[in-house]
Amino acid sequence: MTDTPTSTDRDRTETDATAADREPLFDRIPRRDFMKAGVAAGAMGSFAGCTGLLSDDDHPSAADVDASVAPGEHDEYYAFLSGGHTGEIRVYGIPSMRQLMRIPVFSTESARGYGYDDRTSEMLEEAGGYTWGDTHHPRLSQTDNDYDGRFAYVNDKANGRMARIDLKYFETDAIVDVPNTQGVHGACARLPDTDLIFGVGEFRVPMPNDGRDLDDPDEYTSVLTAIEPESFDVAWQVLVDGNMDNGDGGKNGRWFFATGYNSENGVTESEMSGSDTDYVKAFDTLAIEDAVEAGEYEEIGGVKVVDGRQDSPLNGGSDPIVRYVDVPKSPHGVSVTPDGEYAIASGKLDPTCSVIDIEMLGDAADPNDAIVGQPRVGMGPLHTAYDGRGHAYTTLFIDSQVVKWDIEDAVEADLGSEEPVIEKIDVHYNPGHLIAAESYTADPQGDWLVSLNKLSKDRFLPVGPMHPENDQLIYIGDDDAGMKLVKDTPSYAEPHDASIVSADKLDPATVYDPEDYDEEFVGPEDSEIVREDGRVHVKMYSMRNEFGYSDVTVQEGDEVTFTVTNIEETDDILHSLAIPEYDVNIKLAPQETREVTITADEPGVYWMYCAFFCSALHLEMRSRLLVEPAE
Amino acid sequence: MTDTPTSTDRDRTETDATAADREPLFDRIPRRDFMKAGVAAGAMGSFAGCTGLLSDDDHPSAADVDASVAPGEHDEYYAFLSGGHTGEIRVYGIPSMRQLMRIPVFSTESARGYGYDDRTSEMLEEAGGYTWGDTHHPRLSQTDNDYDGRFAYVNDKANGRMARIDLKYFETDAIVDVPNTQGVHGACARLPDTDLIFGVGEFRVPMPNDGRDLDDPDEYTSVLTAIEPESFDVAWQVLVDGNMDNGDGGKNGRWFFATGYNSENGVTESEMSGSDTDYVKAFDTLAIEDAVEAGEYEEIGGVKVVDGRQDSPLNGGSDPIVRYVDVPKSPHGVSVTPDGEYAIASGKLDPTCSVIDIEMLGDAADPNDAIVGQPRVGMGPLHTAYDGRGHAYTTLFIDSQVVKWDIEDAVEADLGSEEPVIEKIDVHYNPGHLIAAESYTADPQGDWLVSLNKLSKDRFLPVGPMHPENDQLIYIGDDDAGMKLVKDTPSYAEPHDASIVSADKLDPATVYDPEDYDEEFVGPEDSEIVREDGRVHVKMYSMRNEFGYSDVTVQEGDEVTFTVTNIEETDDILHSLAIPEYDVNIKLAPQETREVTITADEPGVYWMYCAFFCSALHLEMRSRLLVEPAE
Repeated sequence: MTDTPTSTDRDRTETDATAADREPLFDRIPRRDFMKAGVAAGAMGSFAGCTGLLSDDDHPSAADVDASVAPGEHDEYYAFLSGGHTGEIRVYGIPSMRQLMRIPVFSTESARGYGYDDRTSEMLEEAGGYTWGDTHHPRLSQTDNDYDGRFAYVNDKANGRMARIDLKYFETDAIVDVPNTQGVHGACARLPDTDLIFGVGEFRVPMPNDGRDLDDPDEYTSVLTAIEPESFDVAWQVLVDGNMDNGDGGKNGRWFFATGYNSENGVTESEMSGSDTDYVKAFDTLAIEDAVEAGEYEEIGGVKVVDGRQDSPLNGGSDPIVRYVDVPKSPHGVSVTPDGEYAIASGKLDPTCSVIDIEMLGDAADPNDAIVGQPRVGMGPLHTAYDGRGHAYTTLFIDSQVVKWDIEDAVEADLGSEEPVIEKIDVHYNPGHLIAAESYTADPQGDWLVSLNKLSKDRFLPVGPMHPENDQLIYIGDDDAGMKLVKDTPSYAEPHDASIVSADKLDPATVYDPEDYDEEFVGPEDSEIVREDGRVHVKMYSMRNEFGYSDVTVQEGDEVTFTVTNIEETDDILHSLAIPEYDVNIKLAPQETREVTITADEPGVYWMYCAFFCSALHLEMRSRLLVEPAE
Repeated sequence: MTDTPTSTDRDRTETDATAADREPLFDRIPRRDFMKAGVAAGAMGSFAGCTGLLSDDDHPSAADVDASVAPGEHDEYYAFLSGGHTGEIRVYGIPSMRQLMRIPVFSTESARGYGYDDRTSEMLEEAGGYTWGDTHHPRLSQTDNDYDGRFAYVNDKANGRMARIDLKYFETDAIVDVPNTQGVHGACARLPDTDLIFGVGEFRVPMPNDGRDLDDPDEYTSVLTAIEPESFDVAWQVLVDGNMDNGDGGKNGRWFFATGYNSENGVTESEMSGSDTDYVKAFDTLAIEDAVEAGEYEEIGGVKVVDGRQDSPLNGGSDPIVRYVDVPKSPHGVSVTPDGEYAIASGKLDPTCSVIDIEMLGDAADPNDAIVGQPRVGMGPLHTAYDGRGHAYTTLFIDSQVVKWDIEDAVEADLGSEEPVIEKIDVHYNPGHLIAAESYTADPQGDWLVSLNKLSKDRFLPVGPMHPENDQLIYIGDDDAGMKLVKDTPSYAEPHDASIVSADKLDPATVYDPEDYDEEFVGPEDSEIVREDGRVHVKMYSMRNEFGYSDVTVQEGDEVTFTVTNIEETDDILHSLAIPEYDVNIKLAPQETREVTITADEPGVYWMYCAFFCSALHLEMRSRLLVEPAE
């Protein structure tokens, strides 16, 4: 094995810095230059020791912690990671960090036939017909502030969509193309019981975005969207000022929080980052529902839209529907503590986190009075996770560290104090989100933390100009020993956020229940080929090692629909129907039926085959599609 | 952690069997039923102990072997695995088994913008315009029978294509849609110097496949295709009898070997598996080139096609261009020993491997005389790998085992003898291919072996009806201690084959060299927007945290081409250009330029953004596309 890269190796592409430079740097240089220095991966991260906290040497890694999962053993947790602009969700096992499965959501995927069979291709077509998406924030359904194992939800930042994943089958089962918005960033829920799903709108655009007000940014708007979890229809939207990115739900069914940047409503980077504070927007969802109930909305694009902008009459009274809390500076992440007492926002361009007392928020005349703590945690704080023992863990993008701090100490200490900070650990490099086991619930497990790092630089064998990212597993179960780095895990672009759930809270099916889908189950006795004026419907089963028909003859130009059932009842015996040169592959798990429709526009012989290696006679599992030439 | 599944757990979905049942079973029951019993994952695999060989208990796992790769340390090997019907290639590190990178080949992939920028979308369009493919056999370029780190090659079984991957950038740089064939299975090279790439045609179809001879299988043909490695143009093809699947090149520049099933030229499973023997086809590539040189070919579909069928005049003389070796029964894999002496084919439906003496093949009047060994290795032998110490390792699909046997002992022993067998190890479950470090070269490393198992059943946390497959890492470096199972690795459908190369033999670039691509590099001084009659060409750079233009205004209906350069010079700082609702995302690594063309058919404001989190001001890295409505 090669040696662990030294600090010098790590920073070789960056200007170096001394410990003394570190603090002043933040104030001394122009923001733009600072940000470019800031991204210097780990450039400043290796000086944690200088703070007098635990140094790198105090963090013995891997060896001390048993994160091994022997062959045949199962992991303790599922982790659901977003796949960024791959448009997918990934399922890892924790602590092995093995990728157990991919779930395509907004992008087509041929191994599953996702976007190839009629059902999924129609779902994607009705959701805008895009071939990709940009997933950021996977959240899992909860009941009584605990994971219930039913659904996952995720956003599409690229095309303003939200999706639901059914955890019985680990498949995307609903997508909504959200009206009146461009770019949905956060995906969250109203807790404790996930009775509303929220899509946090990011980009401000004219409403409707049909060519009006093109260059009149004052007319641009962004919205928070509430979605019914079962029907997955849009329930209502709230207009707000500025952009929003991340969000989290309070634990008591009333509040929802979203961070905002660009309170300036600017359209260039310098305009967007001019102001010293931006907002945490606290949505009083019950007051919003009252407003909707009272008809205090405008119907736009078929949606009931409530005006939650600062100058809205609905924010004028003693019971504003949206409270705008001033938080330094372009805050990125916000998350609610397990006990539901605080919403903690990370400063991003300010070295502090802001602790907002949720109960005070409801009472205080000035929502800013609800900021009860503001610890100075380090450079570029982005997101915060919890261990259930009163500690917060915040990623420091610029310092390339994770900082552990004490929440109650932060409330007791002066604003801007470093005292609440307990320890820092270097990560490699430049972390975005981090996630602790069940951190989004009322009862985090407090053992494993994953830091989703944006850069890997030289942590892995080189694989060309596009590097993997690096998801690092950190053990946080021993407050005395401190955080321990356990594993580096290369990941394909681009995990942004994750949810980690105990394995025993999910109960996926391994065989399909035909009651759960609309397609007609085709057993051997149901096989038939129905022809009428240019349409051919082929109903056939599949099993080891054959399709129901060894050949199917159609005429050039026929529209041919195949309804195919995998009649196997044995776990893990999958088949598919692949049709060469017709760009078709549909996945058929045990007891699953899928349909695919093609136009037989090319005469010839096409060997339809099974793409899942299913038995020793797998290669022989094929059937001929004979397309006869038109006269 | 849960316990390792017991033998009973493993087999719970299958009928059990006793050791005594095992041998007779093969002969006693009809093939179809046998094959169905056969696929019973591991059903018979757990009886290895009954052979008197090493039993499971003799295989202590993980603990004894150090396969750990500490955080920051690098792996010893790259493994290139096919992704089956995902259409991609995956790069693992060995021994960590971490997935370092995905390389999209035949399927579009949005994180890389593969199939989204103009260059790659045109490449895919020219290669048939399909959106997916089915990769099976990734092979790496060699010089003097050793890996030279230049290229990887892989097939598309679904649509009859071959692709080349440039290992400088880890990107697909050439795809050829092979004429006169349907389904290209094996992808291999003529060795020692990779001066020809071979695509092994599988499906037999009419030639040309334009509607003629639809139901006249006697007229169907399949071909071996030779491709020039640099131009990636088809050099010539050879017509053969029967289907072919896998192949491997001899070490001396003359022979190429392909396995064949369906020597019966049947079209149903029972027809295909009627005969007791099928073929290993030994192509004398020098004789074939002489025939081409002598004009003894027919030009079909623009390709020089030589007739290598058994009744061809070119096979009549003393120097046949293709030798048909009778091998039991539907042999699947064939691979050449590191010393180049033998080609070893696996029986699949017969419990033996056949050892073909390559030198004798050239001399013997009857090619069957070249079969110098035929060890009885177990049930369902599929593929064979080598350790460079005279041992062969063969996957047993039905027994769910890997069997280690001695090659020279097999030559000395009687045909059908079990004596050459050294040991067997259970794998989980039903292995297809296996690969040992540098097994395809003249100098295998002999330490690591990966068994690519088709089923995982209950080896991992359940993730719905579509299970991951299981790539198991086995240590083979200690002949006295025996094979040791080290790691289970879940993998997304569907690795078929792999190549493993020492890390020091690759030298990928981390920054693009603009000399290597045609697009015009756009620095800050090159920024411009050129408009002429309905066409707009936007040339802009990208860098932390901005695009060259903060807004771009076009007219509804304009055809807009963006040429965008990432002017960063720092490793691992990627940007992209994502255009919401225009279904665009192009990847821009340091110093890389890509182009994308859209038709601006929807008026409105579109926030073009960077989808790679690139700095603390990443969210602010956006630019407005303003599409003005037509009057």
